[in-house]
Amino acid sequence: MATKGDITREKILGAARCLFNTKGFGATSINDLVDASGLQKGSIYFHFPGKDAIGLAVLEEARNSFMDFLADSLTGDSPYLCLENFFWNVMEKHLATGFVGGCLFGNTALEMGDSDKRFAEIIDQVFDQWIAKIEKFVVAAQEKGELRDDIPGNALARNIVAVIEGGIMMSRVKKDEMPLRECLEVLRKTLEH
Amino acid sequence: MATKGDITREKILGAARCLFNTKGFGATSINDLVDASGLQKGSIYFHFPGKDAIGLAVLEEARNSFMDFLADSLTGDSPYLCLENFFWNVMEKHLATGFVGGCLFGNTALEMGDSDKRFAEIIDQVFDQWIAKIEKFVVAAQEKGELRDDIPGNALARNIVAVIEGGIMMSRVKKDEMPLRECLEVLRKTLEH
Repeated sequence: MATKGDITREKILGAARCLFNTKGFGATSINDLVDASGLQKGSIYFHFPGKDAIGLAVLEEARNSFMDFLADSLTGDSPYLCLENFFWNVMEKHLATGFVGGCLFGNTALEMGDSDKRFAEIIDQVFDQWIAKIEKFVVAAQEKGELRDDIPGNALARNIVAVIEGGIMMSRVKKDEMPLRECLEVLRKTLEH
Repeated sequence: MATKGDITREKILGAARCLFNTKGFGATSINDLVDASGLQKGSIYFHFPGKDAIGLAVLEEARNSFMDFLADSLTGDSPYLCLENFFWNVMEKHLATGFVGGCLFGNTALEMGDSDKRFAEIIDQVFDQWIAKIEKFVVAAQEKGELRDDIPGNALARNIVAVIEGGIMMSRVKKDEMPLRECLEVLRKTLEH
C-alpha cells in the first residue's frame, strides 16, 4: 500500500515533470514546485535534497513509463505492423497534449546535454534502449521481407528515432501535427523496399 | 565603422550565445553573462532591457548566420551534390565543436517551445526557411533524376531537417559523431531511387 510519504513524493514528481517539460529544467525553481504541487517547501526538501535530485527522479520515472509505452505500442500481427502501430501511438500521444511538452528526453537532451553528465547519461541510455528495441522489430521485418534490407537494422532503427525526435520538435514549435505526421509518412515510404 | 557600443553589444551576444547553447536559456543568469563577457552589469542593461531581449537578439543573429551557412554549403556541380555538400558541412561544423552546443534552434525549440511564443515563432520561421531552401534543391535533383521522385519535395525536405536535428540530438548526448554520421548515411540511401 502507498504510504502518505509515497503520495507526497509522487505529487512532487508529477508537478516537476509537467514544469520541466513545458518551462524547461533551468527555468523551474523550487518555488514553482511549491506553487504547482501545493506542498510546503519543507515537505519537498524532506523528500529530495534539491532540484537536481528531483530532475533525475523525474527522468528515471519517465524512462520506465516510456519503456512500458514502447512495449505496449510495439504490438501487431507482424513485425512491420508493430512498427506502424508504434508510429501511430507516438502521433496519438502527442495529439492528446496538443504538442505541449513534447518528448521529455529530447527536451532534456538539448537543455542539459552539455551541462550535466548525469542527465546526459540517462538520456543516452534511453535512446540506446529505444533504438535496440526498435532494431529487433526492424530486423524481424527485414527477415520476413516486409522492410528494405539494404540498410543494417541498427542504422534504420536509429534513423527512425531521429525522424521521430525531429518531427516532434517541429510539431511542438508549430503547435501543429503536420510536421510529425508528414515525417512519419515519409519514414514509412523510405522503409519500403 | 563599428563603434565602441557595437563592440560591447557583440561581446554580450557572443557570451550569451555560448551560454544559452551549452547551459540553456533558463539556467543562464545576468550574472553569468557578467562573468562570461567581463562587462559590468550596467553595461549589459544599457544595451538590452533584460535576458529575454538578449535571447531574442541571439536567435536573430544565429538565424542570419545559419542562412549564410546554408547558402555557402548548398554548392556543387548538381542539385544532389549541393545537398551532399550541405550534409557534410553540417557534420564538419559539429565535429569542430565536439558536439558541444549542438543546434541553437533545436535547443531553444525544445527549451522554450511552450513557454515563450516569441522564441517559438522565430524558430518556426527558421525551420520553414530551412525546409524551403532544401526543397528547392530536392525538387531540382528530382527533376534531373538524381533523387527519388515518389515523395513530394517539401515532405522530403522536412524529413531531411528532422533527421539532421534528431541526429545532432543523439550525437550531442553521446558526445560521439556516430549517431549523426549514421543518420546522414541512411538519409543518403533513402533519398536514392
